[in-house]
Amino acid sequence: MSLLKQTTYQPLTETSATELALALNLFSDNPELSCKEIGDGNLNLVFHIVDDKNRKGVIIKQALPYAKVVGESWPLTLKRAKIEADALLTFGSIAPKYVPEVYYTNDVLAVTVMEDLSHLLIARKGFIKGETYPLLSQHLGEYLSKTLFFTSDYGLGPSIKKEQVQKFINPELCKITEDLIFNDPFFDAETNEFEAGLRTTVEALWKDDELKFHVNVLKKSFLTEAEVLLHGDLHTGSIFANDSETKVIDPEFAFYGPAGFDIGQVFANLLFQVIVNEQNHVLFINHLETVWNVFEEQYKHLWNTENKENLAQTSTFLNYILAKFFEDALGFTGCELIRRTIGLAHVADLDSIEEEKTRLAAKRKTLELGGILIKQRKEIKNLGAFIGTVKGVL
Amino acid sequence: MSLLKQTTYQPLTETSATELALALNLFSDNPELSCKEIGDGNLNLVFHIVDDKNRKGVIIKQALPYAKVVGESWPLTLKRAKIEADALLTFGSIAPKYVPEVYYTNDVLAVTVMEDLSHLLIARKGFIKGETYPLLSQHLGEYLSKTLFFTSDYGLGPSIKKEQVQKFINPELCKITEDLIFNDPFFDAETNEFEAGLRTTVEALWKDDELKFHVNVLKKSFLTEAEVLLHGDLHTGSIFANDSETKVIDPEFAFYGPAGFDIGQVFANLLFQVIVNEQNHVLFINHLETVWNVFEEQYKHLWNTENKENLAQTSTFLNYILAKFFEDALGFTGCELIRRTIGLAHVADLDSIEEEKTRLAAKRKTLELGGILIKQRKEIKNLGAFIGTVKGVL
Repeated sequence: MSLLKQTTYQPLTETSATELALALNLFSDNPELSCKEIGDGNLNLVFHIVDDKNRKGVIIKQALPYAKVVGESWPLTLKRAKIEADALLTFGSIAPKYVPEVYYTNDVLAVTVMEDLSHLLIARKGFIKGETYPLLSQHLGEYLSKTLFFTSDYGLGPSIKKEQVQKFINPELCKITEDLIFNDPFFDAETNEFEAGLRTTVEALWKDDELKFHVNVLKKSFLTEAEVLLHGDLHTGSIFANDSETKVIDPEFAFYGPAGFDIGQVFANLLFQVIVNEQNHVLFINHLETVWNVFEEQYKHLWNTENKENLAQTSTFLNYILAKFFEDALGFTGCELIRRTIGLAHVADLDSIEEEKTRLAAKRKTLELGGILIKQRKEIKNLGAFIGTVKGVL
Repeated sequence: MSLLKQTTYQPLTETSATELALALNLFSDNPELSCKEIGDGNLNLVFHIVDDKNRKGVIIKQALPYAKVVGESWPLTLKRAKIEADALLTFGSIAPKYVPEVYYTNDVLAVTVMEDLSHLLIARKGFIKGETYPLLSQHLGEYLSKTLFFTSDYGLGPSIKKEQVQKFINPELCKITEDLIFNDPFFDAETNEFEAGLRTTVEALWKDDELKFHVNVLKKSFLTEAEVLLHGDLHTGSIFANDSETKVIDPEFAFYGPAGFDIGQVFANLLFQVIVNEQNHVLFINHLETVWNVFEEQYKHLWNTENKENLAQTSTFLNYILAKFFEDALGFTGCELIRRTIGLAHVADLDSIEEEKTRLAAKRKTLELGGILIKQRKEIKNLGAFIGTVKGVL
């Protein structure tokens, strides 16, 4: 089959995607395939191919040579498809329960063929519809403990870890994060988007030198601290879920960075629901607590049983590491809360609130909480203090 | 000339090294070349080729596929020759005054052809002979400010810097540092070497959990903090000098790590002279102060005039960065003082002291100072406090 041996990139169509799926023998004999392109067209094509005889499906994801994010367009190389495929394979080998299975990858076509997850829903969409996914936080705590331990110097040993750092150098996608999370929201950048009712609050934030100092420190950590292989974009739009399953998708932003970044993105995206979802308020606070408690417990277990760095296996150093992850996570949580409120890429949790007064009030809370977490992350020393701080702005 | 097109590695001889120099047209017409292999045979062959007509010379350095360090043998790939050549070119483009000029590199032969520095002496050897090199610390401060600024995110911009991180991933040579500096001296490892008279002191050090905690923190920084392109082995045996010139050689340990590591190695190797060289004691304290003062002043200037990260250009954040570099440098100074006293690779500054009592007293001082700097690096907040701490153990 020619597509498998293709030597130049070409975007797939529904027809050629179906041909590719057939050539890979992913279905039983004589399947009756139907194919639909279901991507949002911003960064990738996504083909959902189903055998109508038994409803078995696969997903074919193909990178496009550019990115559109809310109207902005970046040229992007196709290398990111290889990074995403490599990251899916790495995370899948570490935490198979929480990562879609990969059937085939092709660097020339920038294609990954993987497990069909259409029985699940994107967690953010589910939350907005009123779902609460009771096992989500248990699963994410477990996913985080495994991926953040087994990709580190302590889980891999320093030599193999360095080869992984080299493999996952990802300047293009990191630049998007560096600009949209750590730069643009903190001055009057063209990319920012916020409603008129927030202008006074936003202008005060731009003048807050203490806040900007801390954001520089956090950005430096993002730029320099190659602790673990991060997912790099672990918001609730990158998580598929139902009441029993959780799958983390789309790791094209993967690179070696500070562990607290992934944890912070999970915290922040749960906090949007804590702030906007009055009905399930307590459940989402519980989710926050469970993510950290499960992460901490399982990370400690891995540290004590799987550590490749013999001299590092002391409880004092383990506690130092966990305290650092927690402090970093709070800072990155704050950055994510702020940028999703006033930066280029918003979240539907906030923007879908119809009533202006309620919406503005929620956004003021995310901005306030974001600032507090960034500035006071060293003083907020444990989960109880964190939850107390959250409740203080509600 | 066949050597230039060689497709497989072979070790050079004095004859083939001369042929290579001729083929490169590095000399005037009809030179009368003589060649001598002057390496120590541990890691590399080093050929010194001189045109006897005008005494003009070149150095040809070739990596060997193994490393011998004080009797231990490691297999090492030849990739390190490429890292060394690339690092010489990078540092040479940033601080040409302080780096030997490179005339030719060949990755297949693992060869670098470079400037002849035989009019200079290895600084450590000069110090032991009584030289003090009045400009050395001014030059090293300048070298450090330039290399540690222009290879960082702030000097290069984050995207180019990431490509440099990728290019300089150096697992093999880093492992030597990780083992010999951060692991082995802190437990009863076979590689350690120390005289019987130190055993009580060394055993106390192995039982010092507070010290080992801090060494774990410093090793984590070495493993994860990709701040700048480090020389990675910046002791006084990697520095050629005379009263007017200073050249930093042998960057085969180069990789992206914490800026304080290079600064700390310079501090530690000057401290050996502060401790053993009673006659020039004050001069070497001045050298220590000058390294930091010149580094700090010139780094500040570069930060304010050449910074690629617009939002980072605040004096608060600059002071935070300098305080971090200083604190890290003190910790790494302590590690170097200890490992050069009891680890595998010693320094002649200490070992060449003939009288046992004086030698043991000096070694007890380096161990004591090392421990204090590692444990109290956060409290020793400035140069004055550092010099005070040093004087406290003399």
